[in-house]
Amino acid sequence: MSLERIRTTEASHHIGERIKLAGWLHTLRKLGRLNFLVVRDGFGAFQAVLDDVSALAGCQVESVIEVEGTVVTEPQAPNGTELHDCVVRVLVPVTEAPPLVINKRELKANLDVFLDHATIGLRHPTRRALFHVQAGLMAAFRTYLTSQGFTEIQTPKLVGSATESGANVFAVDYFERQAYLAQSPQFYKQMMVGVFERVFEVGPVFRAEPHATVRHLNEYVSLDVEMGFIRDHHDVMALLNNLIASMLDHVKQQHAADLSLVGPKMPDVPAHIPEMDFREAQALIAQSAGWDPRGEPDLAPADEKWLGDYARDKMGSDFLFVTGYPTEKRPFYTMPASHDPTVTNGFDLLFRGTELVTGGQRIHLYAQLVEAARAKGIAPESIAGYLEAFRYGMPPHGGFAIGLERFVMLMMGLGNLREASLFPRDIHRLTP
Amino acid sequence: MSLERIRTTEASHHIGERIKLAGWLHTLRKLGRLNFLVVRDGFGAFQAVLDDVSALAGCQVESVIEVEGTVVTEPQAPNGTELHDCVVRVLVPVTEAPPLVINKRELKANLDVFLDHATIGLRHPTRRALFHVQAGLMAAFRTYLTSQGFTEIQTPKLVGSATESGANVFAVDYFERQAYLAQSPQFYKQMMVGVFERVFEVGPVFRAEPHATVRHLNEYVSLDVEMGFIRDHHDVMALLNNLIASMLDHVKQQHAADLSLVGPKMPDVPAHIPEMDFREAQALIAQSAGWDPRGEPDLAPADEKWLGDYARDKMGSDFLFVTGYPTEKRPFYTMPASHDPTVTNGFDLLFRGTELVTGGQRIHLYAQLVEAARAKGIAPESIAGYLEAFRYGMPPHGGFAIGLERFVMLMMGLGNLREASLFPRDIHRLTP
Repeated sequence: MSLERIRTTEASHHIGERIKLAGWLHTLRKLGRLNFLVVRDGFGAFQAVLDDVSALAGCQVESVIEVEGTVVTEPQAPNGTELHDCVVRVLVPVTEAPPLVINKRELKANLDVFLDHATIGLRHPTRRALFHVQAGLMAAFRTYLTSQGFTEIQTPKLVGSATESGANVFAVDYFERQAYLAQSPQFYKQMMVGVFERVFEVGPVFRAEPHATVRHLNEYVSLDVEMGFIRDHHDVMALLNNLIASMLDHVKQQHAADLSLVGPKMPDVPAHIPEMDFREAQALIAQSAGWDPRGEPDLAPADEKWLGDYARDKMGSDFLFVTGYPTEKRPFYTMPASHDPTVTNGFDLLFRGTELVTGGQRIHLYAQLVEAARAKGIAPESIAGYLEAFRYGMPPHGGFAIGLERFVMLMMGLGNLREASLFPRDIHRLTP
Repeated sequence: MSLERIRTTEASHHIGERIKLAGWLHTLRKLGRLNFLVVRDGFGAFQAVLDDVSALAGCQVESVIEVEGTVVTEPQAPNGTELHDCVVRVLVPVTEAPPLVINKRELKANLDVFLDHATIGLRHPTRRALFHVQAGLMAAFRTYLTSQGFTEIQTPKLVGSATESGANVFAVDYFERQAYLAQSPQFYKQMMVGVFERVFEVGPVFRAEPHATVRHLNEYVSLDVEMGFIRDHHDVMALLNNLIASMLDHVKQQHAADLSLVGPKMPDVPAHIPEMDFREAQALIAQSAGWDPRGEPDLAPADEKWLGDYARDKMGSDFLFVTGYPTEKRPFYTMPASHDPTVTNGFDLLFRGTELVTGGQRIHLYAQLVEAARAKGIAPESIAGYLEAFRYGMPPHGGFAIGLERFVMLMMGLGNLREASLFPRDIHRLTP
């Protein structure tokens, strides 16, 4: 076998030629004189027709194999082409059946079994496709922002103070001292607006929240953006609108085959995502939904769900901006609205009735920020490094954070956030 | 001021036009009737000539300003152009002098002062340029690997077992249990070869090593790569060679201005980086260097330095592969050489006499890997999730990890790794 191995996704470009494929033994249907083998590699799968399967004696699925053969057109084959006159060689025999079935069209394992054996379960073509799409979203996020003059940064995950986040941080033993895992790069990305004006980061964030819901993880990937020299939060929302559109365009174009395997109904992103004021949203719910959220300082999941349905049915949009959140429930650094200090220039972006993005304009004046911290019970000395940026000149700025797994979950219609993480971490799960 | 603000780097394309710039008051030289102001934004800086500086009364450098004026050609100006007939508006006045001088050509603060005030120090144009280059290296890393069929993955930083790394891990309080911070994504990237064949990750890694040297950090960014279906480690080295060349080409082309500010002598990457066997390297040192490292199981920093000089002087290369490291000093998963099990298919890439990359071929056979773990005192049950990938078929594979900050330090000729991290973490430093 002196041929160079090619990928399964390239095989159908070689009709009439001898080629070599390598990958995992995905399926083997033995029909006597005619046997159908599917070899799966990291990119796709290809069918080979064998007269003789003796080389595979004792081999279970997932054995690592090479298949050499001639590419022929066959309308009944999965790709319209298949391999004939094959020679099979086993590189690594597998002698036990895998702990879950990954070679049927649908992956039927229950979630706990799947997560216990994620290393194997992720080999299922629909799971692999899901994470190809996720990688595409990250790539498009970076490409779009780079084209808009943003600089990618890497900020520390080990921090010396738990101030920003209060009780929900993990403590780390750090050389006889206490350190904490960063809940978000919020402070650092703002500080770096003073250097680069426009920054983004893709990195892990850590939340020590003890609840176990289908839409929370204790470690997840945050897509963080911060930009300077804005007029107000609407500049940030406009960038976010274009960014989301660009990310979805990219995966629709570059990952059509992956998307068709997973099968989600992909959203369109309006040129101008509709916007609704927080109090008007509550009034609308009170008027039409059968409950009255007015007076509450935040939207409950049921409120968000109702607004998502309303946006879809009445506004023709899977996305909805909610603005004007009350000051009391937003972080201290959120810019109060100029017309009413009890509400903020903070926003959420709902996607299909679930919060996907939180963002807003931040306070950029030193004295105002110190005062706002004190008003929420935060001692300025405990955030001195952060405040230094403001002491020496920070422009009007704002930003947002997108939860990568949550974006994938909502876009792909997954029932649980854990399906959108290769190795999810929750209150019960630290392995594999 | 109803003009749209443009970037300083665009100003010289608008000769004869009125434009608006916004940024930080970088310098102000008052010469009476003629005053020179430099405004710095996130991208560059531009000079404005003012008759009247009364709008800036009481403002220190780093005040946030807008400057409107007409772009004129002026051979003596820093860019060959400058702004005349200016109107200045102060957006955010700064009333105190910054804690370090960031508007001289060179940044002269000692490192501790710089790091204490990194938020401000990083505004110095040479520092900003350095991190633009770093972002460029990351971007080129991703672009090249994506073009070669690699999938970007995100693996967990909170792990349930400290096995891979022994004593040098940070412990985390995880809901009444103990978790650990991942020392590297090694196990996970190998496991994902079973899914995607070719994977990479850019993410933080955590090393609880108590030493305080100029070339170690306790948290750094690791550029990790792993690839399946290789013949041996030379396939991995060939990919690395091309990857490094591609990364350096990218920054030379896209960051020429940034590089000229920082001023390093940029290396060329040979089409085939020279390779030297570990024992031959030791023999060469013994013969020529004045000390005898033979019998040592690893190269000391002095050995690497000597080899770096040798590679530069005798082989004309800033880079040198060393192969054939002894089995006893490499991790248990390293593939032993087929001709001699006391040495491995592991390699290091030295760059200017310092280890930049560690990599190698890994063991892919389940039984062999279990045995190798046991031989290093690791109980197979403690790494069951990792071993499961191998139980169900893993192809021959290998990979490597590049320390991002170390690459930048060596490339840019920095004296200390801390200069290549926005907010470095060491045994003494957790803030800002």
